[in-house]
Amino acid sequence: MEHVAIFDTTLRDGEQVPGCKLNQSEKIEIALALEKLGVDVIEAGFPISSPGDFTSVNEISKVIKNATICGLTRAVKKDIEVAAEALIPAVRPRIHTGIGTSDSHIFHKLRSSREDIIERAVSAVKYAKRFVEDVEFYAEDAGRTDNEFLARVVEEVIKVGATVVNIPDTTGYCLPEQYGAKIKYLMENVNGIHKATISTHCHNDLGLATANSIAGVQYGARQIECTINGIGERAGNASLEEVVMIMRQHRDMNVQTGIDSRELTGLSNLVSNRMKMPVQANKAIVGANAFAHSSGIHQDGVIKSRETYEIIDPAEVGVDQSQIVLTARSGRAALKYRASKLGYQVRHDMLEEVYRKFLNVADQKKEVVDADLHTIFAETPAAV
Amino acid sequence: MEHVAIFDTTLRDGEQVPGCKLNQSEKIEIALALEKLGVDVIEAGFPISSPGDFTSVNEISKVIKNATICGLTRAVKKDIEVAAEALIPAVRPRIHTGIGTSDSHIFHKLRSSREDIIERAVSAVKYAKRFVEDVEFYAEDAGRTDNEFLARVVEEVIKVGATVVNIPDTTGYCLPEQYGAKIKYLMENVNGIHKATISTHCHNDLGLATANSIAGVQYGARQIECTINGIGERAGNASLEEVVMIMRQHRDMNVQTGIDSRELTGLSNLVSNRMKMPVQANKAIVGANAFAHSSGIHQDGVIKSRETYEIIDPAEVGVDQSQIVLTARSGRAALKYRASKLGYQVRHDMLEEVYRKFLNVADQKKEVVDADLHTIFAETPAAV
Repeated sequence: MEHVAIFDTTLRDGEQVPGCKLNQSEKIEIALALEKLGVDVIEAGFPISSPGDFTSVNEISKVIKNATICGLTRAVKKDIEVAAEALIPAVRPRIHTGIGTSDSHIFHKLRSSREDIIERAVSAVKYAKRFVEDVEFYAEDAGRTDNEFLARVVEEVIKVGATVVNIPDTTGYCLPEQYGAKIKYLMENVNGIHKATISTHCHNDLGLATANSIAGVQYGARQIECTINGIGERAGNASLEEVVMIMRQHRDMNVQTGIDSRELTGLSNLVSNRMKMPVQANKAIVGANAFAHSSGIHQDGVIKSRETYEIIDPAEVGVDQSQIVLTARSGRAALKYRASKLGYQVRHDMLEEVYRKFLNVADQKKEVVDADLHTIFAETPAAV
Repeated sequence: MEHVAIFDTTLRDGEQVPGCKLNQSEKIEIALALEKLGVDVIEAGFPISSPGDFTSVNEISKVIKNATICGLTRAVKKDIEVAAEALIPAVRPRIHTGIGTSDSHIFHKLRSSREDIIERAVSAVKYAKRFVEDVEFYAEDAGRTDNEFLARVVEEVIKVGATVVNIPDTTGYCLPEQYGAKIKYLMENVNGIHKATISTHCHNDLGLATANSIAGVQYGARQIECTINGIGERAGNASLEEVVMIMRQHRDMNVQTGIDSRELTGLSNLVSNRMKMPVQANKAIVGANAFAHSSGIHQDGVIKSRETYEIIDPAEVGVDQSQIVLTARSGRAALKYRASKLGYQVRHDMLEEVYRKFLNVADQKKEVVDADLHTIFAETPAAV
């Protein structure tokens, strides 16, 4: 079984989303939980973007002992210097630098030329190598970059020491077969490709981020960039919990990760609560209904044999199986108990307000499911 | 360009989810909106499952003029008779019957044999053909069914007149290449396959429902079963909005649907509101953040050239582009205006309560985005 590294960017690509801002202690709390989950790399921020980001990358570098800590930069000297400084306390520091390589980025956004882009890419990697050994290069909008030019860029940055090369589908445009073919092309046409790890970074604009990441691994990528609950710019990134469970369920892919899957549900709740980003009930793996069998036919099947309708044992991803169904007749104790299982501690002085809201929902819906509780707590943050 | 039929099962697979129950007038409202959207088939319910389902299928059959109305059954005579009766008023009625074909379903759930399953499948299709011309057969758990046996079942039901054959990945287990290969195997190994339309019905347990449906189409399927917002059993079904926009963006697939994409956002809001199932902000196509560019780098790129970071023009899916950012300084009028753009009509006597909740959120988050308003309204249904 080959190892696929899990590169979590919840604290960078996820945290830059409107309404998702975290304070520093929340970022450290999540970084520690990610380390416990077993991720290989934590992208902790974009140090030059703000003093807050700088401090967070710096503080996270101090507390994390096993995971690599990564800081994002543009292919700009000042960015790289600031990232290097923020990463000084890290046991395993990584600088993540790069530049746009698609025609749209080169000609419209950067107003540059292909030759100039290669030069800037090489210079950035060389400069970053002065500060750290582990340098990852991203070819922004690689999903829409001509494969031949992309291969030239990748070859040049590996020559000057890039340890990881990231092939982002920045706009979430690719179909899985196209993204897989792109990785295959690079594996077959770049001299020295085996000196570096190829990474996926797929956005979800068409709902294909997870499938594209897996296609990348099938053709040779050995790192997946992803976020808890799939949060991130626009429609977000590949969901960590989905890519991990696919590789776990499909043993014939012959790859494995270092993730402790039993931590997934708890971490999903933590990120959702701290970022105030509710997870929809029908979200794969971590949605409130992901393991709920509702129709009579399905319930009957599951009672006869669990695997008739269930491919994952809920306990494997840390779901509490004691299915207490709450109704308008449930008391405050049952409500508090169920809430605590979902990661919410109800503050004593807020219990009456939460209970009143719960009764309103129970009156309308008869049975109150976990998704309803998440909605109540999303709206009553003071109670958490 | 070949036509791919869109078979919407929001009112059947979606509506059977805990907490999603709709009353009859809500079901008719959604059915009319689906017809306006341009779906080919509306699966309106499972008539034998309850008197309410029977009546809904019957009433929807009366009001829909263009779309086919479909009723679900097991491979059981009584089910088929009841579905046929419910469908009497339909201009284009379809009976959807079927049985489990995987070893898990045959031996554990049905306690039967392969030969018996073929006999029951054939009998059910024959019996349904007595009532309607258009009979769709589903091979439940086809995703985990041995391809050779599946091909035999498909061949036999086509022989006796099945017009559509549905190949469900009931447990959401397949990888896209596996699901695509299954459809390819059937296209190449079933005699008479071109007399019927092959349909996908993919569940999202591993986050692959959309990719699997598209893989099915690439290898010959010409109907996709899906739901608005991807709702449905457990982690739900393929999202209608995702599969439609993928086929629209990837013209080289050489397929098209009859969907008016500008209706997608409105219908997503309608289903989310009526079913009280919030859509997460990072949901592809219809999430509140799907077209929000947050980082400075992205905003700069989009201002220079929209397509640097955007593959879909938001207007194409009916997103209102007037980006009013609400803050604690916004008044009641701005709040009401933004709410109305999201499909919420604030009742006069509820305005103060909604405004108070809005100010609470604004104080905490500085900028209030659409996702926050959806959360507020999910929790204050009386205001809608």
